[in-house]
Amino acid sequence: MVRRRRMVRNYDPQRPVPEPVLQRLLDLAIRAPSAGFSQGWGFLVLTEPADRDRFWSATAQPGQPPDAWLTGMRRAPAIVVAHGNRDIYLDRYAAEDKGWTDRDEARWPVPYWYIDAGFASLLILLGAVDSELGACFFGIPPERIPDYRAAFEVPGAYTPIGAVSLGYPAPDRRSPSLRRGRRPVAEVVHRGRWAG
Amino acid sequence: MVRRRRMVRNYDPQRPVPEPVLQRLLDLAIRAPSAGFSQGWGFLVLTEPADRDRFWSATAQPGQPPDAWLTGMRRAPAIVVAHGNRDIYLDRYAAEDKGWTDRDEARWPVPYWYIDAGFASLLILLGAVDSELGACFFGIPPERIPDYRAAFEVPGAYTPIGAVSLGYPAPDRRSPSLRRGRRPVAEVVHRGRWAG
Repeated sequence: MVRRRRMVRNYDPQRPVPEPVLQRLLDLAIRAPSAGFSQGWGFLVLTEPADRDRFWSATAQPGQPPDAWLTGMRRAPAIVVAHGNRDIYLDRYAAEDKGWTDRDEARWPVPYWYIDAGFASLLILLGAVDSELGACFFGIPPERIPDYRAAFEVPGAYTPIGAVSLGYPAPDRRSPSLRRGRRPVAEVVHRGRWAG
Repeated sequence: MVRRRRMVRNYDPQRPVPEPVLQRLLDLAIRAPSAGFSQGWGFLVLTEPADRDRFWSATAQPGQPPDAWLTGMRRAPAIVVAHGNRDIYLDRYAAEDKGWTDRDEARWPVPYWYIDAGFASLLILLGAVDSELGACFFGIPPERIPDYRAAFEVPGAYTPIGAVSLGYPAPDRRSPSLRRGRRPVAEVVHRGRWAG
């Protein structure tokens, strides 16, 4: 499943994602691990054509003609936007069993409110492979996030960490980034000490 | 696999993780998706008892007697620390096909250099389930990171986003956090618009 996964950037617009399949992917997403079981995530699911159009209008660079990427992505019959909510984590860790009552963000090595929403997104990507679906995880440009929030009434406490497009795959162009090649284990793994 | 996964906080100290199994988990980790195929991650793998002792000494709160959590975790025969390197992402996106030559971090909605290392960590957690191993993902307290870096000569460009303890499971106490209950799909998923 992990090895078969790849980002799919073009979809069959005629084949919606069956509702039971979509539900299964969302059931997987909420099985992601989260710091202190905070589960400080939220997901916006868009399947109606008008909602999907609103998403692409709100998030694409204005005044730019749709490129090949956007043209293929717009054919996706479903979009799941994953969000992380920092406040839910600070609240959870202010509880008695954790005791970080100062709610100080400096106590956190990295923002697990984003990482956990990322975990949930990866489970959707892997579940899509299992369901013979294509999927692609992509970020919403920061300068477009205000329009995105406004379009879907997303509360300010929820930051969109990325969106997953879902649908039955159509032929697409292999990402040129892949030409850079995968960094082998020997290059990224250090044993015993970093130098080692 | 996703449903069977749980954090395991106590291990059989007599059973090391077989090297082929560890290699398989690392092979899975580098199959994680990454923005622009940046693969800006690095992993420190500790299996020697002296290295593992050095890890726990460097990362545990000094002067505190080991609690039940640390006592069980210290029995893990293998630790994989996952790191993210922001510079690799900024460099990747400064390349011609991306064109962010200003290397401005503000172009990123969230730090994908952490999220992608999180993706890799989750693949290790899922691979462990497949291999009948127990695993636990946990953060290194920010105030201990300097000692951790010094102990293993980790370059400043690499931030440890979390560590994964690995080993054959021994009886452990269910995380009290789980008593809070899983947030159901209906509570965290919004259809069409957030209010919806």
